[in-house]
Amino acid sequence: MSAITIQSPFWKRYRDSVAHDMVPYQWEVINDERAVELPFESAGNEGGESEGMSRQWSHAVRNLRVAAGEEQAVFNGMVFQDSDVYKWLEEAAYVLAYEPNVQLQTLCDGLVELIARAQAEDGYLDTPYQIKTGEYENRERFGQLQQSHEMYVMGHYIEAAVAYWQVTRNEKALDVARRMADCLDQYFGDEPGKIPGADGHPEIELALARLFEATQEQRYLNLAKYFIDVRGKDPQFYVKQNTQLHANGATSIFPGMDNWSSEYTLSARPIQQQQTAEGHAVRVVYLIAGIMHVARLSGDEELAQTAQRLWDNIVQTRMYITGGIGSTHIGEAFTYDYDLPNGTAYAESCASVGMCFVAREMLEHEIRGEYADVLEKELFNGAISGIALDGKHFFYVNALEVDPDASERNPDRHHVLSERAEWFGCACCPANIARLIASVDQYLYTVRESERVIAAHQFIANDAELLDGVHVRQESDFPNSGEIRFAIDVPEGSRPVTFMIRIPSWCYGSYSLLVNGVDMKDAVQPVDGFVAIPVQQTAVITLSLDMSVRLMRAHTSVRHDAGKIAVMRGPVVYCAEGTDNYEPLWNYRIDRNLEEDIQVEGGAGILDGLKVLRVPAVRRVDDDAQAPLYALANERFNAVEQHTRLTMIPYQAWANRGKNAMQVWFDEMH
Amino acid sequence: MSAITIQSPFWKRYRDSVAHDMVPYQWEVINDERAVELPFESAGNEGGESEGMSRQWSHAVRNLRVAAGEEQAVFNGMVFQDSDVYKWLEEAAYVLAYEPNVQLQTLCDGLVELIARAQAEDGYLDTPYQIKTGEYENRERFGQLQQSHEMYVMGHYIEAAVAYWQVTRNEKALDVARRMADCLDQYFGDEPGKIPGADGHPEIELALARLFEATQEQRYLNLAKYFIDVRGKDPQFYVKQNTQLHANGATSIFPGMDNWSSEYTLSARPIQQQQTAEGHAVRVVYLIAGIMHVARLSGDEELAQTAQRLWDNIVQTRMYITGGIGSTHIGEAFTYDYDLPNGTAYAESCASVGMCFVAREMLEHEIRGEYADVLEKELFNGAISGIALDGKHFFYVNALEVDPDASERNPDRHHVLSERAEWFGCACCPANIARLIASVDQYLYTVRESERVIAAHQFIANDAELLDGVHVRQESDFPNSGEIRFAIDVPEGSRPVTFMIRIPSWCYGSYSLLVNGVDMKDAVQPVDGFVAIPVQQTAVITLSLDMSVRLMRAHTSVRHDAGKIAVMRGPVVYCAEGTDNYEPLWNYRIDRNLEEDIQVEGGAGILDGLKVLRVPAVRRVDDDAQAPLYALANERFNAVEQHTRLTMIPYQAWANRGKNAMQVWFDEMH
Repeated sequence: MSAITIQSPFWKRYRDSVAHDMVPYQWEVINDERAVELPFESAGNEGGESEGMSRQWSHAVRNLRVAAGEEQAVFNGMVFQDSDVYKWLEEAAYVLAYEPNVQLQTLCDGLVELIARAQAEDGYLDTPYQIKTGEYENRERFGQLQQSHEMYVMGHYIEAAVAYWQVTRNEKALDVARRMADCLDQYFGDEPGKIPGADGHPEIELALARLFEATQEQRYLNLAKYFIDVRGKDPQFYVKQNTQLHANGATSIFPGMDNWSSEYTLSARPIQQQQTAEGHAVRVVYLIAGIMHVARLSGDEELAQTAQRLWDNIVQTRMYITGGIGSTHIGEAFTYDYDLPNGTAYAESCASVGMCFVAREMLEHEIRGEYADVLEKELFNGAISGIALDGKHFFYVNALEVDPDASERNPDRHHVLSERAEWFGCACCPANIARLIASVDQYLYTVRESERVIAAHQFIANDAELLDGVHVRQESDFPNSGEIRFAIDVPEGSRPVTFMIRIPSWCYGSYSLLVNGVDMKDAVQPVDGFVAIPVQQTAVITLSLDMSVRLMRAHTSVRHDAGKIAVMRGPVVYCAEGTDNYEPLWNYRIDRNLEEDIQVEGGAGILDGLKVLRVPAVRRVDDDAQAPLYALANERFNAVEQHTRLTMIPYQAWANRGKNAMQVWFDEMH
Repeated sequence: MSAITIQSPFWKRYRDSVAHDMVPYQWEVINDERAVELPFESAGNEGGESEGMSRQWSHAVRNLRVAAGEEQAVFNGMVFQDSDVYKWLEEAAYVLAYEPNVQLQTLCDGLVELIARAQAEDGYLDTPYQIKTGEYENRERFGQLQQSHEMYVMGHYIEAAVAYWQVTRNEKALDVARRMADCLDQYFGDEPGKIPGADGHPEIELALARLFEATQEQRYLNLAKYFIDVRGKDPQFYVKQNTQLHANGATSIFPGMDNWSSEYTLSARPIQQQQTAEGHAVRVVYLIAGIMHVARLSGDEELAQTAQRLWDNIVQTRMYITGGIGSTHIGEAFTYDYDLPNGTAYAESCASVGMCFVAREMLEHEIRGEYADVLEKELFNGAISGIALDGKHFFYVNALEVDPDASERNPDRHHVLSERAEWFGCACCPANIARLIASVDQYLYTVRESERVIAAHQFIANDAELLDGVHVRQESDFPNSGEIRFAIDVPEGSRPVTFMIRIPSWCYGSYSLLVNGVDMKDAVQPVDGFVAIPVQQTAVITLSLDMSVRLMRAHTSVRHDAGKIAVMRGPVVYCAEGTDNYEPLWNYRIDRNLEEDIQVEGGAGILDGLKVLRVPAVRRVDDDAQAPLYALANERFNAVEQHTRLTMIPYQAWANRGKNAMQVWFDEMH
């Protein structure tokens, strides 16, 4: 399917790993061929010590067999366990697009058959509600939308089916998805007897929009729009369902969530009136992606403005410098403008992956550099930081300040791991990162067929056939180097194209631009973050971006970064890790007068291929253990600071060398 | 009873307020003559917005009437609701000692009668387990010591009874306490048929030690020691009890606590082997107070060393500069050495009150200035900060950085109020602070009868009769002024005394000392923090302490204070409040080169009588709302900092002028 081949060394490493390590590994996990080591989680353990790792089985594929009547067992796992299977299928589909593999495709075909057999007669498919064992015995389909994740799970199947169909033309996969959507269409709506509500966890909206694109079935787009519009029409909808559930003698899936507010579930008001991004970060960005997708497909400008408003709120006031979003682990949620604590951050990997979805939709709606800047920020920082360089270990939470002692011994930071885990009880993140990596080719260009515009917005080396056979070759070793070469060939007899290249905001206008060897920087000024170059037949465009290391500061409204500096090179955010530096890290201050003196070196060992920085700094010499807890300030500071260098590595590459402290923001010295 | 009369203006204000406002107010509360406004609490509300205040009734006295069979009703309130009544009685007893009041004494006598009627035949008294309604129906006496608080509650009665008996000689009050202790003596021990365990919440240990002092009944001291020694002998004791409880079909009082670790409950090992202060901060300090008390009464040096070791661990590594202890709200607990987050601190008022108990016991064991320094730190900061200047509003949590937005909108900080509350659902703190204030006269001197030593360790003006009629008059306006005058008169015919005065560590040796007008500073060097002056018959001693404002810093192992400065004057920790300064406060940096230029002024309005500081600082000018979230560091810092002054007030006096931001630690500029 994909006419884009990735050559970028940075990305090929991860894509190979997804194909050769993750896809087989996750297949074994979801099929119970291997148990997974789960990290300590704070729940139920809050007064105690870390309990270390525990081994668990997924049961995800087995649940499908049970639902299909092919095995007798109780339902096992999280309420959304099915989605692990579907994300694997989606990820495998993308892998098949860049690395065809008959054996894998046979596995996938067999899985689709199983899924089809598990699907209910009327198209419904969610194994806990079909197996109905244990607490599910008294729970009715769609009876607790706030918590059930039924449509979230089906949405993930639909996404997987569309992807798998696009790559392999497996019609059965798409047919199962159609039947699911038809089932939902029967159940939901404002008509009498139908349910006037949306799933607590958005996902079905963007999935139905994709299904519409694959099938051109207008009902699916209408249904996607319905789920967007119905949210918040009755702010009491979830409360009423929960009340009814308890009246029926059933229990909640997550009893602690019953009373969570309508603000948290983004249902306090119609989404068109929502001003800020509230509640569970992943849900918010999945919803915005769906809103913008539906807005574009349906031409609904009010919805597009809604997506834009929520995007602006996130990007301008609620996003870590790494692209992470979600400032608290409680509810995995947004808090409020400029509240970005580093050590208790949530910044879930899935939320950053979701931001990539949103950015892509924003770009489809309007080609503006600011969207692609955020996409790049996620691709090289917040999203990719969720996976280890070995491709087999993960972060669910991506904090910006990590201290192993605090993670183990302060329960407010139990959610922040200082070591990557093999898997998670709630296993959304590993597969989400994998499907992003495997489909990263879909995030490089925004194309306008009618205007014959190709907007190249990511510096990820690739070879692409676009429009009616326009060939684009991008060569670079980005982000190590800022030298990027585009070679564009328009097929003979085709109309000319407008080739747009993003000028990233992080270079602050410091770049050079040659078109066929001619300096065009002054002649072609960027508009909305892009330069536009008409190409009649062929062109070679060389862009040189200034890759000088930059010292960054946050808006003065961010309490947690006041007086602090972060270090970036290109789009890459840097951090210091305990293993490279004298600890504790918090006693370093970065000398911002010596910005010019920062050394850029090649990384060694597992960091080979990455750039490492040696940043001039001063270090407060540590007091000994006998020193008093509090002392006169003026007796110390001048005397015992040492001039030194702080070694910094790309944020995304941390936690690949054992348990470790890490810090992004440092006190500044000036 | 008390032969010490407080004249200190600082303390008289609070003591008048306890006598005239708090005692009547709390009486109305515990008797359901007024409902209380409870602040929003995060439990069950974590995904949502603040829900504001709610009104509730105490039912505490009513529960006693029900237990006495004089009224029919279900038990109502927290499992330890009874303790509210007993703390009120103890507080009233102390008030009667400095402000006799027949009407109040009549109320107290009547209450003692009710308590006596509520007491079971065998001496047991804990209303939920006597009324046995609701979930208590299946719960057995002493069947879940980890959570039941039965002995905690009875301990509070015993403390109250001893205090009330000492002031009024009401024998019935003491008799009820004896019968309680006799009951416990029947139930607990290593003998077959007895329970070999201690209460999850220490308190009975220190209470029984006091009862022994009042009654000289050796069994009570033995039992106190037993409860100390049995803790942790079987680390599975609480687990076994919980398992049995559930086997009996009963529910836990706090189900979430069932699995909390033996480290948390300080039962992982015999207390003599415990190296660090772990778990619930209030429990730890109550236990240490009991341990040191019992160690002194029984001459057990190993126990004394245990108390000393835990004290050192707290004071040297786990105490906020305000004296607050407990670094996390989860379990209201200690975390680990040097982990002292300011914005998520717990620092419960009760824990600081408990530290005063411990410090007093440490001083009784050994007269060392370091103990009295901590006592003073608590009396002028962490303990007293729990009560408003009006005496009618309280803090349960005493964080060092408060931001109303964060408290309302970041659930990690929901426990930190930015406005004092009238009362709390768990109402331990208001009464605990009140009983400390009402008995502060008991914290001024440590006296050694046989050696005829009087150690004056607090600069709280008073008039005292000590030993065999030695009259001590301390005049001062401390902490406003550092000028302190002691006039000592030994009765004719009595032997001379040694009068010791603490030289506080915070003056760093900068003081003058005149004895009968003669400079004795060089002649009388402090030993263990005290100067010792022999007084034959009469002496006038003038101590002048350097009250210069001091800029303080924390140990380099404290991450949260790295590069930051706190401001103190005498023992008083200062903070800046939003109402006096340009917000946000985090954009101020204190200029430590201008320490000499700090201005000390008198406070106005409700701060009348306190000293206010005007501290040279620079302020980062705030970015406007349109400014990017992240920007180049070197484009800003130099250009837009303003030299200004930061207004700072005593930490204990904050939150008396409406909802407000507050900060103790500030970035330093140098």
